[in-house]
Amino acid sequence: MNRSELVGEIRKKESFLCVGLDTDFDKIPAFLKKLDDPVFEFNKRIIDATKEYCVAYKPNIAFYEVLGSKGWESLKKTIDYIPDNILTIADAKRGDIGNTANMYSKTFFELYNFDAVTVSPYMGLDTLVPFIAFKNKWTIVLGVTSNPGSKDFQFISNDGQAVYQKVMSDTAKLYGSSNTMFVVGATRGEEIAHARKCAPGHFFLVPGVGKQGGDLKTVVQHGFIQDCGLLVNSSRGIIYAGSDENFDDKAGEAARLLRDEMAGLLRDHNF
Amino acid sequence: MNRSELVGEIRKKESFLCVGLDTDFDKIPAFLKKLDDPVFEFNKRIIDATKEYCVAYKPNIAFYEVLGSKGWESLKKTIDYIPDNILTIADAKRGDIGNTANMYSKTFFELYNFDAVTVSPYMGLDTLVPFIAFKNKWTIVLGVTSNPGSKDFQFISNDGQAVYQKVMSDTAKLYGSSNTMFVVGATRGEEIAHARKCAPGHFFLVPGVGKQGGDLKTVVQHGFIQDCGLLVNSSRGIIYAGSDENFDDKAGEAARLLRDEMAGLLRDHNF
Repeated sequence: MNRSELVGEIRKKESFLCVGLDTDFDKIPAFLKKLDDPVFEFNKRIIDATKEYCVAYKPNIAFYEVLGSKGWESLKKTIDYIPDNILTIADAKRGDIGNTANMYSKTFFELYNFDAVTVSPYMGLDTLVPFIAFKNKWTIVLGVTSNPGSKDFQFISNDGQAVYQKVMSDTAKLYGSSNTMFVVGATRGEEIAHARKCAPGHFFLVPGVGKQGGDLKTVVQHGFIQDCGLLVNSSRGIIYAGSDENFDDKAGEAARLLRDEMAGLLRDHNF
Repeated sequence: MNRSELVGEIRKKESFLCVGLDTDFDKIPAFLKKLDDPVFEFNKRIIDATKEYCVAYKPNIAFYEVLGSKGWESLKKTIDYIPDNILTIADAKRGDIGNTANMYSKTFFELYNFDAVTVSPYMGLDTLVPFIAFKNKWTIVLGVTSNPGSKDFQFISNDGQAVYQKVMSDTAKLYGSSNTMFVVGATRGEEIAHARKCAPGHFFLVPGVGKQGGDLKTVVQHGFIQDCGLLVNSSRGIIYAGSDENFDDKAGEAARLLRDEMAGLLRDHNF
């Protein structure tokens, strides 16, 4: 899915919502656990209930990996089930040298056919190349995160420029906004504004709304650009909105509420 | 495997060699491809041929992930096959916030029963906690790497202290040398010396000897401590030393040569 197609979906749905499929086997409603593939059955119902309100799904790979081979099968079925007009993001945060990065890019872009994958920049710009080399795929580079420890290394400053700012500026200069995005933590408006200066034309994937405490209005205020330039993720606030047989209705309701809030904000920005 | 057991193995074998199981399906000798699980059969023969000369095996997870569910099964069989007196390291370079890191730690320490896992520090010290919380397991934190792009962000300097030095110093202060190690790239003696100053008592996993161009003598000169404190990895130089039916003999020979060099260096240091 290219940028204009993604922006087209945002316009059509009046939403820049990404639903995080952090599907924890222990939190799946009991009645689904009797089925053959509870993780897929859970995701399928979540997708059916929310696909009208979101433009992206982001499975968190850790939650599938921990289930072994069966988890990877559930992941594959989930990706195959997601409609083609919705962006699929592997939240994998991989990062390694050339031939290893090459394997990781093949895993997510070819084997599982994701549209996008998150990667960690610690090892340097050359480690991003195998991902970015894929045509019609998105590489989403960790910029600034919202966890307490994000201050430890991302904010080390040289001549007034923090590490995360250099990561974003250098990556944005090398790699165009048509196939690269950044992860930008949502809890601090100031950081979103700084991040936006480093990468004025790139999409941001903002993971902090919901349980991580970000505020949608702040994100839009500091991160919005002409063609939106934002994907805002919510995981637990949507997929665990309910816990019994009508969990999917509750998830749909939670997604619809966020979409409605997004639609209002998009209108405020004459989008 | 705890530190004194690991050091005991190093003494016994006169070796601090780690064999990297970066098993690329395309490079497996043709005669093995007729078997049911060529990746495991390849690893099994490599392990049989090299186990006398090494103290650790390090499967590179990317090479298994790219094969889907079958790859994870080959990985599991490989780990189960490695003798208990040899350290098993998952080269995974994972790094994510609390509940996600928790899943990754369970994957490698519980499901696959690795002794150690490599992790990326970009997101901060708190993201290491779920790994370090595991009893009798090792967390190996990326310090400085040897790829060309390592300069991009690891060497950003604040008051004369590079990012990688802060990563290592801060981690070493918080987390003891009995269950934490660092990845230290091998191509530059100066960096190994700097890294050693940041973490004087921790083991280093040095991945750069062999195809990545590191020199064993330089590594020992700058990194050796009283109980050795080094694991030096070689992957391609060993596992692809041969390419036909006697590939395992060639691998054993390559491992033995490195062990012999290591034994000489250990004696030079009165170990």
